[in-house]
Amino acid sequence: MEKNDKLFIVADSIENCLVLESYLTGTDWLVTKFDDPDEAIDKIEVEHPRVVVVDLPLEFMQEKFGSLPNQDIETAYVAVLPEVDPREVAKFFHNNASDVLIKPFAAERFRQAIDRASNHKTLVVQNREYREQLEKANRNLQESLRILEQDQMAGRQVQNSLLPVTPMTHGDYEIAHHIEPSLYLSGDFVGYSVIFDRYMVFYAADVSGHGASSAFLTVLLKFILTRILRRHVTQNDQKAIARAPEGFIEHINKQILALGLDKHLTLFSACIDMERNILRYSVAAHMPMPVFVTNGDVRILPGKGKPVGIFSDCSWEVQEIVLPDKFAMVIVSDGVLEILPDDTLKAKEQFISDTIAKSDTSIESICEGLGINQVEDAPDDITVLTLRRGY
Amino acid sequence: MEKNDKLFIVADSIENCLVLESYLTGTDWLVTKFDDPDEAIDKIEVEHPRVVVVDLPLEFMQEKFGSLPNQDIETAYVAVLPEVDPREVAKFFHNNASDVLIKPFAAERFRQAIDRASNHKTLVVQNREYREQLEKANRNLQESLRILEQDQMAGRQVQNSLLPVTPMTHGDYEIAHHIEPSLYLSGDFVGYSVIFDRYMVFYAADVSGHGASSAFLTVLLKFILTRILRRHVTQNDQKAIARAPEGFIEHINKQILALGLDKHLTLFSACIDMERNILRYSVAAHMPMPVFVTNGDVRILPGKGKPVGIFSDCSWEVQEIVLPDKFAMVIVSDGVLEILPDDTLKAKEQFISDTIAKSDTSIESICEGLGINQVEDAPDDITVLTLRRGY
Repeated sequence: MEKNDKLFIVADSIENCLVLESYLTGTDWLVTKFDDPDEAIDKIEVEHPRVVVVDLPLEFMQEKFGSLPNQDIETAYVAVLPEVDPREVAKFFHNNASDVLIKPFAAERFRQAIDRASNHKTLVVQNREYREQLEKANRNLQESLRILEQDQMAGRQVQNSLLPVTPMTHGDYEIAHHIEPSLYLSGDFVGYSVIFDRYMVFYAADVSGHGASSAFLTVLLKFILTRILRRHVTQNDQKAIARAPEGFIEHINKQILALGLDKHLTLFSACIDMERNILRYSVAAHMPMPVFVTNGDVRILPGKGKPVGIFSDCSWEVQEIVLPDKFAMVIVSDGVLEILPDDTLKAKEQFISDTIAKSDTSIESICEGLGINQVEDAPDDITVLTLRRGY
Repeated sequence: MEKNDKLFIVADSIENCLVLESYLTGTDWLVTKFDDPDEAIDKIEVEHPRVVVVDLPLEFMQEKFGSLPNQDIETAYVAVLPEVDPREVAKFFHNNASDVLIKPFAAERFRQAIDRASNHKTLVVQNREYREQLEKANRNLQESLRILEQDQMAGRQVQNSLLPVTPMTHGDYEIAHHIEPSLYLSGDFVGYSVIFDRYMVFYAADVSGHGASSAFLTVLLKFILTRILRRHVTQNDQKAIARAPEGFIEHINKQILALGLDKHLTLFSACIDMERNILRYSVAAHMPMPVFVTNGDVRILPGKGKPVGIFSDCSWEVQEIVLPDKFAMVIVSDGVLEILPDDTLKAKEQFISDTIAKSDTSIESICEGLGINQVEDAPDDITVLTLRRGY
């Protein structure tokens, strides 16, 4: 706020103005004197002095200056009155006069009244300016946020367009997924597709970190895996796909290392031969391990392996299991662990197993059991991938 | 704000309280009467009534209630005074009493004073609450913005790590780039590298849109092009690289279409044989076209072609020119056009040519001439890629 040290004195004669002005000797006030109230009022509108001292006959004062203090937030009005009915004093305050001085008064009392009125106005004006600054800052922040959110949402749309439809069924197999990003963009990603009308290839990936930087890698991952599968299809390489996911993770690892990004990922990569009903899978540091439910029995699938994108000379084992007629298999990302009630990893994993055992194995009931739908501000991306047969 | 209709009356006798209370018959005020000022003061601290009416002997009032109105922002104080010196009235207002009533007064005047004081306090409290809400909203917005900005900056770091060093020199050739993202993440991208110590492959891409969704595609583009070049190197395929960028854009086009993203891009893709000093390039809808400066002569390189990622059956011509001993070539993305002073595309292109002709052909002087360093809030990503020989 600019310093405003203009002070107007309005009285019925310049002599009376001079008396009041003399009280201000030695202060910094820039005094202008008026013996014509109308001229003073015109000047007030233009110059917005910090303080106006009015020493006029009571009725005249009320008529001319009565409503002014209500209109002008920046100017403090000090009324100089003769010995009057105390009710008149209250009226001036009702009309937002900053102070009322009753004649006679000492020079000191006059200066006090001026300072008090001026300081009070300064506070009022500062408050208003502060509020306006806050409002403006709010608008700017909202606009910045809107732009960034819009940007992230556009990115999310692209990322979503790379995710498979959910649920997808093929014969008596059904696969479904749910991804809950911590922000807009996700470092979690899943993919699945059916090749040669016989093999269901699927994977769940969790790129280190979350958000935009991790989402980059999920796009790349989708691209690399799509290319592998497309090559198998165009070359009609049934033998290669029968061995899937053999070599998948090694290939991805090589490609991602070559790009030189400082990012790595965990991966669960699998393929089901739906004719022979055999599941083959590899694990690259993905945790928690998949939960497998069949006929009331709940177990954790075995397997381990290093994360992808760190070690150049690395291979991943393929596990193989025969699938029963009716089963459900659930893969979650470690983001789920962050929202579970228990304290230890062991207890959390037990919670996941119990939740799946108690569920009807649909993705909806599992997500609800894990409390994923109620989560706000999840600290990490959350993925649930379910695969089941015979339901 | 909760409705607060508690009103305390403090007088030197319950009879006097009753007189004042009788004036409020028919109003909604919940009146509590006190003939003990200390008890009243204790209760005020606990119950925070909206209005306190004090009708006590003057000195007593000043002693007990003088400083209270300054401490308690939520409670309005109304002082009931006998016929006093008008200066005393002013003093009460100085102490932030909301109103002063001079006895005797009509019931109507009493109710007015109460309403006025109460409404004024309501306004004060609402103002304070509004300010607090604003402050809280500001903090929340800042936090949300901080999280998103951090996320975008992490993404930008990843994207930057995929960009080549600038400048890069090889023999008497020098290549350099400058990218100014509109937000944090860029849909503009450049790449260059030297293959077989002889070929300088370089490209400038502009993915439709800008920000996160477009940045995804730049990561992919880098990946695809890196793979092509790596394959040439590992297979020691000198013949293929001698034909570069033949087939590059076709390959990228196929890969990007296969991914099924609703995104396309423009591309300038080129390769210089630094032994034979021949430039070969293809243009996929990139504009404005590169500016070529040699020996005081400024010209626009010819060439055209469809954008990448839209048409499946499409090919791109390769242009070939022999390079003089000393030349500079500058490729900018269309984001530059948005920040230039002229109105028409023709005038803007002329501005770019003139700027390059006037520059010392260093990327710094060209960026400065185009005003890129002064730009804030560029509506689109801006790229400048310079290639020169003999400087």
